Amino acid sequence: MPVGTQGSVKTVSSEELEALGFELILANTYHLSLRPGSDLVERLGGLHGFMGWRGGILTDSGGYQVMSLSKMRTITDEGVRFKSHLDGSEMFLTPERSIEIQAELGVDISMMLDECPPYPCSREDALAAMNRTHLWAPRNLAARRDGQAVFGIVQGGVHEDLRRESAAFMSELPFDGMAIGGVSVGEPTEMQYPVVQLTAPLLPRDKVRYLMGVGHPQDILHAVSCGIDLFDCVLPTRMARHHCLYTLEGRANMLNLKWAKHNGPVDAGSVFPSTERYSAAYLRHLFKAGEPLGARLASLHNLAFYARLMAEIREGVELGTWAGLMERYARA
Amino acid sequence: MPVGTQGSVKTVSSEELEALGFELILANTYHLSLRPGSDLVERLGGLHGFMGWRGGILTDSGGYQVMSLSKMRTITDEGVRFKSHLDGSEMFLTPERSIEIQAELGVDISMMLDECPPYPCSREDALAAMNRTHLWAPRNLAARRDGQAVFGIVQGGVHEDLRRESAAFMSELPFDGMAIGGVSVGEPTEMQYPVVQLTAPLLPRDKVRYLMGVGHPQDILHAVSCGIDLFDCVLPTRMARHHCLYTLEGRANMLNLKWAKHNGPVDAGSVFPSTERYSAAYLRHLFKAGEPLGARLASLHNLAFYARLMAEIREGVELGTWAGLMERYARA
Repeated sequence: MPVGTQGSVKTVSSEELEALGFELILANTYHLSLRPGSDLVERLGGLHGFMGWRGGILTDSGGYQVMSLSKMRTITDEGVRFKSHLDGSEMFLTPERSIEIQAELGVDISMMLDECPPYPCSREDALAAMNRTHLWAPRNLAARRDGQAVFGIVQGGVHEDLRRESAAFMSELPFDGMAIGGVSVGEPTEMQYPVVQLTAPLLPRDKVRYLMGVGHPQDILHAVSCGIDLFDCVLPTRMARHHCLYTLEGRANMLNLKWAKHNGPVDAGSVFPSTERYSAAYLRHLFKAGEPLGARLASLHNLAFYARLMAEIREGVELGTWAGLMERYARA
Repeated sequence: MPVGTQGSVKTVSSEELEALGFELILANTYHLSLRPGSDLVERLGGLHGFMGWRGGILTDSGGYQVMSLSKMRTITDEGVRFKSHLDGSEMFLTPERSIEIQAELGVDISMMLDECPPYPCSREDALAAMNRTHLWAPRNLAARRDGQAVFGIVQGGVHEDLRRESAAFMSELPFDGMAIGGVSVGEPTEMQYPVVQLTAPLLPRDKVRYLMGVGHPQDILHAVSCGIDLFDCVLPTRMARHHCLYTLEGRANMLNLKWAKHNGPVDAGSVFPSTERYSAAYLRHLFKAGEPLGARLASLHNLAFYARLMAEIREGVELGTWAGLMERYARA
């Protein structure tokens, strides 16, 4: 899932996302509920109509952004009281309200409100966040509207026993899919991999498995090898705005002088259709000159790179050849 | 001509310009000669190849930007000495050098280096600028490479006798087209119209007539009625970045609260193909949220509006019905 935080995958149009082959995107409940407001989006035909997107939409619960963006938040068993980062107005987010907002947004997949502790975090805090997540899980489910799909989230930090407990607890509940939360929150890769490796096989075999906020191509491939199906990540578009292009040879920094006179594509193997039209030297010029087209072309390039990665994974899984992709993407 | 100052019409791709039906764009010699440098652009296949643009390109001479952007400039009969606004390095622009830079850029139409006085300007200064422009005209022509098309520029400020003298002088020289310069430099419309009305009919009937830097739809229609063929203007894209959309009912400011709940296009009559997909409320949200897609969609809308204006003018001239357009665009 490309990430459209505020109802827009930055610089990219819905037509372009469709042309790249994406079928599902992620949008942020926290941002959209503050601006323009989920009630307004509902009156305007839901987020699909609002942003002119004909594919599927998954929204996060808003919990993660409340924690990372808002000052002055208080979390209790009831919910999270916080002040908007936009105008300081006081808000109160509960599991019921999060599910209601996502229903108003009219998305295809809603995420349960959980407590996602930051990294680093003590075992005590990881346990408390897991317990509160478990307390909230049935309330999220009870708030569902008819036909609203809600995914559960396993917490437990980097602690094997907590992850086992959380996976077992969540697996018993009638969620429509299951996510691993609390990874990609700042921990090093060597701490992320064991959590994924341990937790993924504990999730129900008949439900979609979603690893939240991951990640680098290597991280995705590792997670797929553990049985994960679904990913969201800001990297393709964020890296693009920071003038970095994904290639099979590694990430290319477009400000690097080596591209200044390069009259060919950065990545001759790119599947982005305009690759032949715009040279590396032109792309570098756009970034150096502060032209907005630079971030846009780079975003399209990176999204095409990720779309191909996911297509090759799907094909490789079907044909049983996907392990070869580890080497193909080793430098990406 | 949409304006691609630094080799990019801001936020818009070359594919999109082609799809909108534009056949000629303007780029800025001053900006491109400083960054990335005309010698580099030449080595990379010229500006067409550099920016992946398959239509025509006209460049200005660089003189106007030297005057408006550069501090510490000294103008003599030889040329203009100035410091780059990017790094303060000292540069010297002469008629010969301007024509050479434009040849290196490999464009289809080069503009002669003239002296364009600012507004307001005394009659004495307008006379001096005109005389220096006349002094430079033959030097521009002598510097042409084989096959390089160069347009002359008539100066003379708001003074009828000077405009007559300049038009007569320039008309004698073997330029490939003729421009009216020194308008749209800050003077009120009621001072601009008489200059265009006076000067346009004095230009050779068998050469293209180009009114530099104009303008609003009304200004373009007035100028066409005086016999002008060609225009460049930053308004469609600059207005778009300032959240203003051109419509036949007048300019729409997308920050206006009246659009907040408007679940339909800003301009139902727009010829921009994505008009039905993105509502006014969504466009307003993009601007309010600082999403770069807002300026991009607005730019495409405004360019489509101008492309239609010019298409309707061409059609109206051929059919002899074009005077009706004055009313059609009276509020635009």
